[in-house]
Order: sequence, then structure tokens, then C-alpha cells
Amino acid sequence: MLENLKIGILGGGQLGGMLIRHAIDLGLSVSVMDKDANAPCARHTSSFFCADPKSYEAVLEFGKDLDVITIEMEAVNIDALSELQKQGKKVFPSPDTIKVIQDKFTQKQFLLSHNIPVVPGEAVENKDDLQRYENKLPGCLKKRRNGYDGYGVMVLKTAADIAKAFDEPCVLEELVDIKHEISVIVARNEHGAVKCYDPVMMVFSEEKFVLDFQVAPAQLDESLLKEANALAEKIADALQLVGILAVEMFVTKDNKILVNELAPRPHNSGHHTIEASITSQYEQLLRAILGLPLGATDLHFPSFMLNILETEGLNANRAEKLQQLLDIKGAHLHWYGKKGNRLGRKVGHVTITDSTMEGIVSKADTIRKILN
Amino acid sequence: MLENLKIGILGGGQLGGMLIRHAIDLGLSVSVMDKDANAPCARHTSSFFCADPKSYEAVLEFGKDLDVITIEMEAVNIDALSELQKQGKKVFPSPDTIKVIQDKFTQKQFLLSHNIPVVPGEAVENKDDLQRYENKLPGCLKKRRNGYDGYGVMVLKTAADIAKAFDEPCVLEELVDIKHEISVIVARNEHGAVKCYDPVMMVFSEEKFVLDFQVAPAQLDESLLKEANALAEKIADALQLVGILAVEMFVTKDNKILVNELAPRPHNSGHHTIEASITSQYEQLLRAILGLPLGATDLHFPSFMLNILETEGLNANRAEKLQQLLDIKGAHLHWYGKKGNRLGRKVGHVTITDSTMEGIVSKADTIRKILN
Repeated sequence: MLENLKIGILGGGQLGGMLIRHAIDLGLSVSVMDKDANAPCARHTSSFFCADPKSYEAVLEFGKDLDVITIEMEAVNIDALSELQKQGKKVFPSPDTIKVIQDKFTQKQFLLSHNIPVVPGEAVENKDDLQRYENKLPGCLKKRRNGYDGYGVMVLKTAADIAKAFDEPCVLEELVDIKHEISVIVARNEHGAVKCYDPVMMVFSEEKFVLDFQVAPAQLDESLLKEANALAEKIADALQLVGILAVEMFVTKDNKILVNELAPRPHNSGHHTIEASITSQYEQLLRAILGLPLGATDLHFPSFMLNILETEGLNANRAEKLQQLLDIKGAHLHWYGKKGNRLGRKVGHVTITDSTMEGIVSKADTIRKILN
Repeated sequence: MLENLKIGILGGGQLGGMLIRHAIDLGLSVSVMDKDANAPCARHTSSFFCADPKSYEAVLEFGKDLDVITIEMEAVNIDALSELQKQGKKVFPSPDTIKVIQDKFTQKQFLLSHNIPVVPGEAVENKDDLQRYENKLPGCLKKRRNGYDGYGVMVLKTAADIAKAFDEPCVLEELVDIKHEISVIVARNEHGAVKCYDPVMMVFSEEKFVLDFQVAPAQLDESLLKEANALAEKIADALQLVGILAVEMFVTKDNKILVNELAPRPHNSGHHTIEASITSQYEQLLRAILGLPLGATDLHFPSFMLNILETEGLNANRAEKLQQLLDIKGAHLHWYGKKGNRLGRKVGHVTITDSTMEGIVSKADTIRKILN
């Protein structure tokens, strides 16, 4: 039964922390591996392995006594996961799914091969190779691997920008004329059952490519919402996904949907599901990988999710700002407890719930003033 | 800030587990002490101390590197907590509060001294001493200390029952003519701010004195509900409580409220607050003991909370029963992951939410059929 199952998570950041939060509800034992001994998850389990999830030996060693292995980041060793799978461990999402997604160009080709509309892009080997694509500028340059939260993404406006470009394998994407960015979290289990959360609208900070805030439900035409969910379900089936998948999409100015990026794990765009949905994305992931029935994804109420980034202003007066924030009715603080300092990183988020969208917008304004 | 605060919990059962769940939301480091190496909390922290919370030396050692110490059970060493308090540690609830409450007769005298209506009762030394109170039978005999979940409680109908009575210090209480049992969770912080949750109605199993199910909000007259909340607030003030307190009360057939028992910690009657209230009782406890603003206690929707007790029927087919339960929309499973076996103990609970009370009652019926 549940209490005898040993679950392992590769990656020990805030997503892992929120997953442990929900693993407690099912009485599960969770082991975590992260290369940082101070990772947020390190203190939330009796079974923490300080090692790099990209190391073959470390992942193999980590998995040997586990029953089910999952991820909270894509930068993990696929060969070790495949070997564990061969040994009879359940690895969800499967190594094949992670492999397709962890490389942004392979991901794009996979989607194209399944007739999923994507942002057009070219594979470039390095900085030199970029010269060949001068005529494609302006464009968005993304590292093929290991990018996250805006790290590994830059806009190249003209040929002059190539000098400062990443000098490693990248994808050069067309700069799409975006009206909205949306995201759908979809879950699928071993029996092929699929459930989608309704799309959320995401607003990114302009300079940093990091999610600023997110609104659920997305205020868009019903037909677009349905199309987005249908695409997410189609991708989950194509990947033979077991677990959850975030599908980030662009809605273009002419109302076309293009898939931007996939993440086969809990995602920032689904944080609101903890307070606002019947089943959170974290519980849904556990249900999916443990062969339990998928939970209902209905929203209880509208919500707004704001990321809290580390800034000098916040650091100067953090205790008082968080006190003020906790005093707002319906503002749910998630503070990640990260050690050390690094300006710009995500250190927490707030989910705001209210019975009306107007109430939420007003609270969000108050919170922005507090945090800035 | 929050991530540098070290919190300690005496007791590592399911209440501690749910407290850790909410400590993750605030990025806190939590240490736990329990005498059972297999306690549910043992696997949810990197800092588990296997020792008896009733041991002076163990509690003193446990507390020496902590900032704030709280409890999830009353059977803890008060002298050690007082010493830690003298050393400048924050101990919430205070050792004085725990001391008054951990002895059921002292608790009753304290309430009487503050003009709180209680169930009338006498202190008896042991089985022999009970002979003096033959004329008070039938009555309810409760051990003064260490009772929980129906352990340490029995009804004595006639003098013949004295032979099987507990042979230790007890309280012999009048058998009150009860119409309803209700409970109020109240929180109070160091600044004297007080917030109550609305009363819930509790239904106990007849043979076992263990909570069977609980309904929020209690379906009672507004005036009774207000009186119950006023009593809870008065008690929290009288105790100079810092933390949370469950006040279990009887509503008699002539609509009088009598306080039955207090518990200065998260309580079974407040489990529903995780899903059904803006702020859960666990988050509220953390807010109260960390000097953060108390959260709003409003209910989002009506709810029903059913305890899951270990039975032969459940054990025979547990995986399938839990699968069926997880398939019910709005049924939130909390499985405690207890090791070993013992019939009758609490192994989990289910909180059912729905927009209407009718919807909840119908789901509760389905769940009872599954679990039985």
C-alpha cells in the first residue's frame, strides 16, 4: 500500500517541495536527489541524496531501492533512468518522454511530426553557425538544453547581436506576433486516461523571460480554450505520457495557437491549482504515476498567481513585506525557503483567490505595491 | 527570516505530518520528536529525534538548537519546556497552558474558576476511591492524563462496573443529556489577537468514543454558534494562549453549552480547514506561534470530514477501496502512512467538499459504503 511505496524525485527545488507537501497527504515516503545540499527539499525528507541528477552513477544508485521515480526538472541522466526502467522500476515520465523534451529542437521536431503547430525555428550549432541565419533575424535564441526561468533565452535583434549570442547548440526561433501566452497542464496515466486543467493566461516580465503573473481561468474565447486543451491532450497521447505535462502556447494576433515549449513535470503555470482547483497539479502527478484515478481538475474560484522574485527592495525589508502580504485575506503565500542570495531568482509565489475577478485584481495591486 | 527559523514539534503523528505540510508553504525547517521511529512524521523531515517527549533530558536536548517549540500531543515534559522557555526559546503553547490542560481535572477547575460552564465531575484517586461515588453513577470515567481518541474513557453504568474501572487518577463526570457535540478551533497570538473558526458538529462512534465524522458549518441556531465562539475566545484569553486550541463542547437537550474538553494543538475537528477554509488550522498555528498575522477563518464551502479507522474489512481490500474513494469528485484523501497494524486506530481521513450540503451527504454515503 501507499505507505510502503518509495518514491524518488530528481531535483529538490520548490516544485519538489510542493510535491512532498502532497505526498504527505498520501502517506508516501519520498527520496530526493539534488546537487545542492541546501536545496529547499533537503529538509523536508529523511532521505536526501546530495548528488547531480545528470550523473549516470548517482541516478542509478539513487534509484536502486525506489519503486517509482519522477522528476521536477528536465536536466537529468536519461541513460540511468532507462537502465532503472529495464531493472523494473517505474520511471514516470518515461526516459523517452524526457529525452524528447529536454532538447528544445528535438521537442520541436517531435511536435511537427505529430502535426502540432509550433513556433518555427532552426537548429544552430554555435555562435559561428548563427551567421548563416542572419536573414532570419530578429529571432529568439534558446539553448537546446538546460534553460529555465529565462536563463538560456535571448532575443537577437540584428546581426550585431550575434557577437553576444550563446556559443553552444541552440534553436533560433521566429519572433512570433504574440497576443497572449497561455498554458495547459495535462495529466495522463498508464491506462491512457487523460485530464486537462483549463488554460491559464501567463504574463512574462519583458526583460527576463520569467513568469510574472498568471490568471486562471484565461479570459479568452471558448473556442480557443477548447483548441488549447485538445492540443495538450493530443501531445500527451503522442508522448504516451505517464505523469503531467505543461504545454506553453502562444496565441498570435490572428488567433492561431502555436506550441512554445513543453515541460513534463509540475510547472509554475499550475501553482494556482493548490488553492484554486479540486485536485492540485502535484496531487495529480502522484495520482498519475501511482496508477490512481486522475482527480477532477475544476477550478473552485478564479485565481491570480504572482511570482516573488528576489530584489534588493524585497531583501531590504522582507520580514515586514511578508507580514503585510499575509494580512491580505485570500492571499496564499508559498515561500520557498531558499538559502543564500541571488537577485532575480524565484523565492516564492502568492496565489490570490476571491469570488470575483475584480476582487482578485484589486488584491493583486495591493500585493505588487507591498512587494515593490 | 522564515527559512532560518528552526521549529520543533513534540509528537510525530498525523497532526505533525499535516503541520509539516503547511510548514513547507512557509519554507520552514521543522524538527520532530517522537518515541516511535516509525511515526508518520519521521520520513517528512531531515531532523527527526527518536525519543519520548515525556523525558526531561530528551526534550531539553531536542530544544537546544530550536527557535520555536510547539506540540501535537499534550503528553510532554512540562519541566523541560519551562527550562527551555527560561533559556529564551519560544515555547507555544506555553508550558503553563499545556500543564493546565494535560490533566483533565486541573483543566476543569481552571475553566470553573473562569466561570466557564463545564460538565460536572469529581476527582477520584483510583478504583477503591470510586466506591465513594457509587451514588454518582451512571457516569463517564476519564483518566486524568494521557487519554486520546477514546483510550482512557469508559462509561460506568452501575456499581458493578467499578470492578473493571481504571485503577489510576481519574475524573468521574456526570452523564450529560447531550443533543449535539460541537467543537470550535480558536487561535491567539502573542499580541492578543484572537480568531475563531465557526463551530463544527461532531458525531462520535458510540462504542469507541472516537470521532466518526464532522460537519462544517454546524447546523445549529445562530445564537448557539455565537455563544460557542464567545466561550472559545474567553478560554483562549483566560489561558493567555499563543497557538491554537480546540474547545469540544456539548449542547444539552435544553440548549445549554457545556465545555467538555480542551486540546491546545491542531485537532481532528479542524481537519476540514485544509480544504474548506481560507486558512487551515495548521497554517493558523504556524502564524500564531511565529508572530505572523492570523489568517481569515471563513469557510469556502460546506464540508464533511470522515475518519478512516483500521478495520479487518478495510485491511482485506485496502488498495481497491482507496482507489474507489479517490475516484469521487471532491473527496480529499489524507492517508497517514502509519506502519504496522492495530484495529480501531485512525489511519486516515477524507474531507468531502461540495457546493451544497445535499451533495456532501450523498458523497458521504458512497464513501461509507466503500470503506465498510
